[in-house]
Amino acid sequence: MPRPIVTFTSDFGHQDWFVGVVHGTIHERAPEAHVVDLNHTIPAGDVVRAAFVLEAAAPDFPPGTVHLAVVDPGVGTARRALAVRARGQQFVGPDNGLLEWALSAPDAVVHALTEERWFRQPLSRTFHGRDVFAPVAAHLANGEPLASFGPRIADPVRLPSAPLVRRDGVLEGRVTFVDHFGNALTNITAEALAGAFGADTPGGELEVHLFDRAIAGLAHSYGDAPVGTIVAVIGSSGRLEIAQVGGNASDRLGVGERDPVLVRRRARPA
Amino acid sequence: MPRPIVTFTSDFGHQDWFVGVVHGTIHERAPEAHVVDLNHTIPAGDVVRAAFVLEAAAPDFPPGTVHLAVVDPGVGTARRALAVRARGQQFVGPDNGLLEWALSAPDAVVHALTEERWFRQPLSRTFHGRDVFAPVAAHLANGEPLASFGPRIADPVRLPSAPLVRRDGVLEGRVTFVDHFGNALTNITAEALAGAFGADTPGGELEVHLFDRAIAGLAHSYGDAPVGTIVAVIGSSGRLEIAQVGGNASDRLGVGERDPVLVRRRARPA
Amino acid sequence: MPRPIVTFTSDFGHQDWFVGVVHGTIHERAPEAHVVDLNHTIPAGDVVRAAFVLEAAAPDFPPGTVHLAVVDPGVGTARRALAVRARGQQFVGPDNGLLEWALSAPDAVVHALTEERWFRQPLSRTFHGRDVFAPVAAHLANGEPLASFGPRIADPVRLPSAPLVRRDGVLEGRVTFVDHFGNALTNITAEALAGAFGADTPGGELEVHLFDRAIAGLAHSYGDAPVGTIVAVIGSSGRLEIAQVGGNASDRLGVGERDPVLVRRRARPA
Repeated sequence: MPRPIVTFTSDFGHQDWFVGVVHGTIHERAPEAHVVDLNHTIPAGDVVRAAFVLEAAAPDFPPGTVHLAVVDPGVGTARRALAVRARGQQFVGPDNGLLEWALSAPDAVVHALTEERWFRQPLSRTFHGRDVFAPVAAHLANGEPLASFGPRIADPVRLPSAPLVRRDGVLEGRVTFVDHFGNALTNITAEALAGAFGADTPGGELEVHLFDRAIAGLAHSYGDAPVGTIVAVIGSSGRLEIAQVGGNASDRLGVGERDPVLVRRRARPA
Repeated sequence: MPRPIVTFTSDFGHQDWFVGVVHGTIHERAPEAHVVDLNHTIPAGDVVRAAFVLEAAAPDFPPGTVHLAVVDPGVGTARRALAVRARGQQFVGPDNGLLEWALSAPDAVVHALTEERWFRQPLSRTFHGRDVFAPVAAHLANGEPLASFGPRIADPVRLPSAPLVRRDGVLEGRVTFVDHFGNALTNITAEALAGAFGADTPGGELEVHLFDRAIAGLAHSYGDAPVGTIVAVIGSSGRLEIAQVGGNASDRLGVGERDPVLVRRRARPA
Repeated sequence: MPRPIVTFTSDFGHQDWFVGVVHGTIHERAPEAHVVDLNHTIPAGDVVRAAFVLEAAAPDFPPGTVHLAVVDPGVGTARRALAVRARGQQFVGPDNGLLEWALSAPDAVVHALTEERWFRQPLSRTFHGRDVFAPVAAHLANGEPLASFGPRIADPVRLPSAPLVRRDGVLEGRVTFVDHFGNALTNITAEALAGAFGADTPGGELEVHLFDRAIAGLAHSYGDAPVGTIVAVIGSSGRLEIAQVGGNASDRLGVGERDPVLVRRRARPA
């Protein structure tokens, strides 16, 4: 078996010792696994944001990767704990929508974590990242089958989706994440663009609108245009994003999360 | 031998390259060890805070773990360097109280690090994390016995303890750490509560006071009560902590480190 | 083959998932390598600062280490991608001066990365850290020879150097980096001091000037002098640095990057 990768996403921050303790819990049980931190700066309890990070990052990992995600405001209550197999990978986390990207897959298999023999003992009421999710992630990485951890379930908590709107030749989505460089990532995927305008439409024939203004045509990279130019590109996670060449588009345009973004065909000159 | 874990705690921050260089120094000498970062955001020179982080996190690691801790305002002076075996684990750091949790163990065995053949050469005067402590931690992880590094000593520097006070049926402690979620961790352990009030006393019969107010009875988890409720729970490191369900207790109550916390029996209605 | 170390320096920050994705890309291709983060808080696009971090940290790593550096404002343009062998180590990054420390070595061998079969497919236009540099770093760590990745080139982009000035018995340099502790690191190396004043000159005979003031003689460590003292020491990376014992020299003196620093012989009393 190759050395498995376990990714780890949380709202734990870096001010305490919680991230390190989870690493130790995994290493103790799966000594050959690599543990990779995705993001621990999720605002406390922000399940939607963490779900987006997982959706954006998980496709970049190889088959067999185990994704551990802990944003768990309901820790200690009756909320269920889940393990999911989907899209060739496995996912572990609370049943609060955090694993939405996995759950939305046609091939998703979802199990509740009820077999306490896998948990760290004594089981605390406040730190299931350490006591429930990390041990299960480790044993999944070791090849333990999903069914060992509890029964299959059919009703996991789902996140409401924010579907794209198509109307009068316009595709409308939203900014879903502003990254560290100020790039505004949207929920408009390359597939959605192809579906709305045809896969063969050159990017230059499409026009991206933010608020009431046309921002840019669809470009190939940040770097094709002069420094300072606003560009709209299909970014590295396959989504339309609005960027400023050599700068911070979010600061420049005042664009933030949930702002609407429209794509339409460029008007042809008469 | 299983793959050993080396934890690493420091005041190095993440702005420079010091943390990475220590990782490299360990990997070079102990290629099979896992290096786990606990916390590098300790304020510069804050030995007391780092000692608390180590005390809170170390019990979560398996026997044989090596804990490397470097908060070392006296680097380059005559202060000693130590390796300690205690509580089934090993600890490496400067002789300034940082390793208090290990030193306070009845079974603690303390050695001074004097055998320079283990150090990185040339030995700098300003970066013993790289040149002294990391190499020793790596060799301990490889199974080198404590005595190889220098003589046993009996007089390590100790931190003054902040003992709990019991008076008139009241147990008084202090807030020792406010974590990333705003939970106020105290120095009142589950054992101290059992000693003061009996191990069988239900949490609901005890009342936790902060400043002059009764805050809450003792609950089982953050999640038992409605969002917004202030709760007092035995947290994941076995200490009484004050939390707000779904919120930030420290912000809400204005509670900070060193504030007094009292526990008493709840008055019975007449 | 021992387990190779791959260091990773970038301007990616910790708010997104980019650092983790690069780790995963390396682990997938070089499962035995250790990936060590040096610094991901480089300001966006600040090639000069990242080049300094690499120069300061790389000498602390063992021969055979692969240093991956991605500060790449030109991603997606025609700028070349490089792999360099120099000083017993290997370096991977964009052709924008980031690898200056490697390029300045007399033994530097520089190859352009043109063999796309090593790249992650499909190759994005915006994330060559994931798609180009990380895969090449992984394969270098696996022992793949430099020539496999593309042709040798002779004209990599170089950073303008900021040479030291010697005039009238004075050696003049600059502050190049203020670290997390407020220590002001200069571009004046121990070698340059030996060249200017003789290798045998005791530090106490030299005097370090900042702005118009004599700051300190050259000391051996932060800790030789009382708390609060300003000292000038040869730091752990072999450079003259200005520090305050137990404090923050940068705050205290108002010294920042690019400020001039002079070293001269101390005037002898008449």
